Amino acid sequence: MSDYAAPIADMRFVLNDIVGMPDLAGLPGYEEASPDLVDAVLDEAGKLAAEALAPLNHSGDTDGAVYENGVVRAPAGFGEAYRHYVEGGWNAVPFDPDFGGQGLPWALTSALQEMWNAANMSFALCPLLTQGAVELLQAHGSAEQKQAYLTKLISGEWTGTMNLTEPQAGSDVGALKTRAEANGDHYRISGQKIYITWGEHDLAENIVHMVLARTPDAPAGTKGISLFIVPKFLLKEDGSPGPRNDLRCVSSEHKLGIHGSPTCVMAYGDDGACTGYLVGEENRGMEYMFTMMNNARLAVGIQGLAIADRAYQQARAFARDRVQSRDISGSNGPVPIIAHPDVRRMLMTMKAQNEAMRALAYFTAGALDRSKREPDEAKRRASQAIVDLLTPVSKAWCTDLGVEIASLGVQVHGGMGFVEETGAAQYYRDARIAPIYEGTNGIQALDLLGRKLVRDKGAAARGFIEEMRQVLNPLGALPGNDGKAIRQALERGLDSLSSVTGWLVEAAGRDIREAAAGASPYLRLFGTVTGGWLMGRAAVAAGQRLNGADADGDFLKAKIATARFYADNVMPQAAGLAAMVTEGAASTLSLDPERF
Amino acid sequence: MSDYAAPIADMRFVLNDIVGMPDLAGLPGYEEASPDLVDAVLDEAGKLAAEALAPLNHSGDTDGAVYENGVVRAPAGFGEAYRHYVEGGWNAVPFDPDFGGQGLPWALTSALQEMWNAANMSFALCPLLTQGAVELLQAHGSAEQKQAYLTKLISGEWTGTMNLTEPQAGSDVGALKTRAEANGDHYRISGQKIYITWGEHDLAENIVHMVLARTPDAPAGTKGISLFIVPKFLLKEDGSPGPRNDLRCVSSEHKLGIHGSPTCVMAYGDDGACTGYLVGEENRGMEYMFTMMNNARLAVGIQGLAIADRAYQQARAFARDRVQSRDISGSNGPVPIIAHPDVRRMLMTMKAQNEAMRALAYFTAGALDRSKREPDEAKRRASQAIVDLLTPVSKAWCTDLGVEIASLGVQVHGGMGFVEETGAAQYYRDARIAPIYEGTNGIQALDLLGRKLVRDKGAAARGFIEEMRQVLNPLGALPGNDGKAIRQALERGLDSLSSVTGWLVEAAGRDIREAAAGASPYLRLFGTVTGGWLMGRAAVAAGQRLNGADADGDFLKAKIATARFYADNVMPQAAGLAAMVTEGAASTLSLDPERF
Repeated sequence: MSDYAAPIADMRFVLNDIVGMPDLAGLPGYEEASPDLVDAVLDEAGKLAAEALAPLNHSGDTDGAVYENGVVRAPAGFGEAYRHYVEGGWNAVPFDPDFGGQGLPWALTSALQEMWNAANMSFALCPLLTQGAVELLQAHGSAEQKQAYLTKLISGEWTGTMNLTEPQAGSDVGALKTRAEANGDHYRISGQKIYITWGEHDLAENIVHMVLARTPDAPAGTKGISLFIVPKFLLKEDGSPGPRNDLRCVSSEHKLGIHGSPTCVMAYGDDGACTGYLVGEENRGMEYMFTMMNNARLAVGIQGLAIADRAYQQARAFARDRVQSRDISGSNGPVPIIAHPDVRRMLMTMKAQNEAMRALAYFTAGALDRSKREPDEAKRRASQAIVDLLTPVSKAWCTDLGVEIASLGVQVHGGMGFVEETGAAQYYRDARIAPIYEGTNGIQALDLLGRKLVRDKGAAARGFIEEMRQVLNPLGALPGNDGKAIRQALERGLDSLSSVTGWLVEAAGRDIREAAAGASPYLRLFGTVTGGWLMGRAAVAAGQRLNGADADGDFLKAKIATARFYADNVMPQAAGLAAMVTEGAASTLSLDPERF
Repeated sequence: MSDYAAPIADMRFVLNDIVGMPDLAGLPGYEEASPDLVDAVLDEAGKLAAEALAPLNHSGDTDGAVYENGVVRAPAGFGEAYRHYVEGGWNAVPFDPDFGGQGLPWALTSALQEMWNAANMSFALCPLLTQGAVELLQAHGSAEQKQAYLTKLISGEWTGTMNLTEPQAGSDVGALKTRAEANGDHYRISGQKIYITWGEHDLAENIVHMVLARTPDAPAGTKGISLFIVPKFLLKEDGSPGPRNDLRCVSSEHKLGIHGSPTCVMAYGDDGACTGYLVGEENRGMEYMFTMMNNARLAVGIQGLAIADRAYQQARAFARDRVQSRDISGSNGPVPIIAHPDVRRMLMTMKAQNEAMRALAYFTAGALDRSKREPDEAKRRASQAIVDLLTPVSKAWCTDLGVEIASLGVQVHGGMGFVEETGAAQYYRDARIAPIYEGTNGIQALDLLGRKLVRDKGAAARGFIEEMRQVLNPLGALPGNDGKAIRQALERGLDSLSSVTGWLVEAAGRDIREAAAGASPYLRLFGTVTGGWLMGRAAVAAGQRLNGADADGDFLKAKIATARFYADNVMPQAAGLAAMVTEGAASTLSLDPERF
């Protein structure tokens, strides 16, 4: 079994040099996020991840969460780990201080989320869902609801769930049928929800379900959806959990991965007595959901990064340890397989893309922070535009890469990668959910195309591309060849992205189906080039830091070499991806469905 | 659970129009392979695959092969299915008629292998291993050994295994330690082997293990390895299985996939009484192994294709059946998801690459047939050169794509893809072994580079590239735009492949490590372009057939549209892959192992 060590040096580098944590700490409300505090938080979180969560990852997979007669038992050790997590205050990091939160930036929270998910993705899903409930209530809950639920959810004493999907309503949330009928000060909820992550468990004394449902006279589609708080235990007058509500987990899924995380089928109101409380106003449920969607989608993107880094760490350890075959250029005896060029290629492919994903995810989180806290409205808006653009890219690009990198991790192990005891196979299984949930990656691509690109005729994307060009000159000014090579690859990538963006905006006006057929390769192109930009920025920052007195020369030189690898080996995909959009979209649609 | 239907129309098209079965049937020994017989064989095999093997695929995965106290029970139903398979004569199809084989071409056998593996990869592995034993004995067994073992292995009444790997000897077979000491007319074998597919089971009355071991005075490395027949039951005078030999399965692996196929740890000679019989001469075991390696590697490539086609068929059925969301260009209500452009892209990506893989695998098998049966020695040699080039490409390219396409299959299903009952997840798990066994794909890439490219300074590769150019003019002459677009994409791809081939030959002379760092993207480039060539040939043949009286116009037009999709959406990767070799190999090696 692999050990996990949080990659704190790279996390700190990204936070400081890419996200600009020192600047963030200057924003109102983030004054606490001093460099010392950030360092301390990263170190402590790294310990919890390595010592409490990572050791339960494999056993959690093997044992799985167990469903029996409506009751779900989390895997052994998860209960104690969760208590540590709550008692350490980790659940409260990014939330509202008025309700017990620590009010720290999302950028820092992103690094923690990476750690929790890399250490134990099944475990980390539980607080991830709670986060959604917290954000909904922070933004839309009444004072009374906040009083009753928010403090407990922020502390983590209670957990939250998101109830959107029904058998006939997956990507098409508007097709949902769960009903809510007004009944005095509350509503009676009835219906069945599927794929409810941590919908039932024994980690916390109450579970607060956030449920989308329709009132009897609601309009059809997404405009007729309302949002309800449906607690597992109704609250007593003193606020503590009282009588059981009429809801239950009626089964749990047998899944490819994340076995430690129960995926529940939830039945509400089988006995006609399920109590729910309306959040905000009727029929505005979908609108409220968008409040937390950027954050949730970014968090899933971070899962892709996290599992990729765990897979990388394990593959690296194996490649250093496993001795097999001589060096191809000659050696006295067999060598550790990390010496073999093809293994080196796999590890570099993992490492370089992981670092690019980390930079993208944290950068996006930093933009989210700025979109909330910049005193200047124009700056808030500009940051929000970045968040809107990069959220679907972070979600889909990082989770697709998560699968690919976990697969490379298996490959580095050879035959042992296919044996479950080794652990590499678990990452390959666990990683596979992330491109699916929280909006499939196809939905993300359509979101990027439709809501982010077509709506403003590409203005935000063009602005962002111009911003990315700002790193070209500093790259060219780096000593040696690396900066120039990175600059050249990035410039080509930006040109591709720019022309394809223009093509797509035009195509969308002409034939939205053809534009949609290019949406996924466009998103991949966007991620690849943005990753290249961030690696370019990292190379520039590393080059500058190398002159500093206390520079960690080995780390900084490795960063530049890794950025160069990315430029030479990942960026060349850009032209092909561009062609898949502009040349390939039409032939994607040329075959009648019956001819498949 | 999905149904499987062998894609007989495409199989027949590839066999006739790409492989040239009518020509093959003109070669000495293949006279029986008339079009009528080929059709009948495909139809009957398709029935067996669909009716007997495919229904056991999911239950075989769920139940798994069970190990207990040295005994392995195959999953329920496998025994009866195997009897059907043997009684139908299917095991004997490609083998020597003198020992009960049917002597049919490997090209036709490839289509059958695709069916068995698509229907039930775990099941199909058992005859695949027997095939290796048959080929070894056909080529190197003594008359007496052939008499004793070959007939039973060809019929399938007994099964065979390959015993190469030991814990310290994986890719580096030369590091094996199993010992063989001469003892009268036989040898005493002692040692432990791992990853022995179908090493123990209850499907057949005897198991013939082909075991690599060292005699006491053997030279170190691969030059000191000998090959032994080690039967589970020693033979009585009448040739029937007699006393148990001193060998046993001591455990079986808990694996990511192919659960229906036991992967055994085998112990030989624990009681000092394991009898083995030398095949051929001492110290020539590795040389013998190469006899069957092309065939075995091609067969694993076919597994990649097979699992990809199974995943495609299931995704296609789901996409037609699942109704969700309106059409992006407007519709009255929700539509089957196959109408959505992004789903269409996924299905086209699966379909086009599957057809290219099928063409590559069968074409390579046809070249193998020609390398054995062409009366003219120059033609035999030319065919052998094609086999040598395309075997590692078929193995690695098809199995990498197998994983990617199985992953796309999961994605098409959305949330249901992650639920094991659906079946899509099994293909994703099963597919993952194929890039690993029978020589990892990294080993295949080094084989292509070292044994196939460097050895003759690229002569065979250049010759093959020139052969591929022959399709450019016929493509350009097709009516409409498709042929011209395919031609242009292919020409670019061939130019890339040609220049990278030259670069690699030169680089290998300068710095073999740098050349090796580019080996994997070079193999991928080779597969991508060769696939494009074969799709181009398919488009030309389809264009010609469209004028025929009894043309299946829908099929042929779809073939051309699919070739166009491949040209527009797969071929654009070629330039990026080329850059990864020529620009990317150096930075792949730039980081010290300690800096990862």
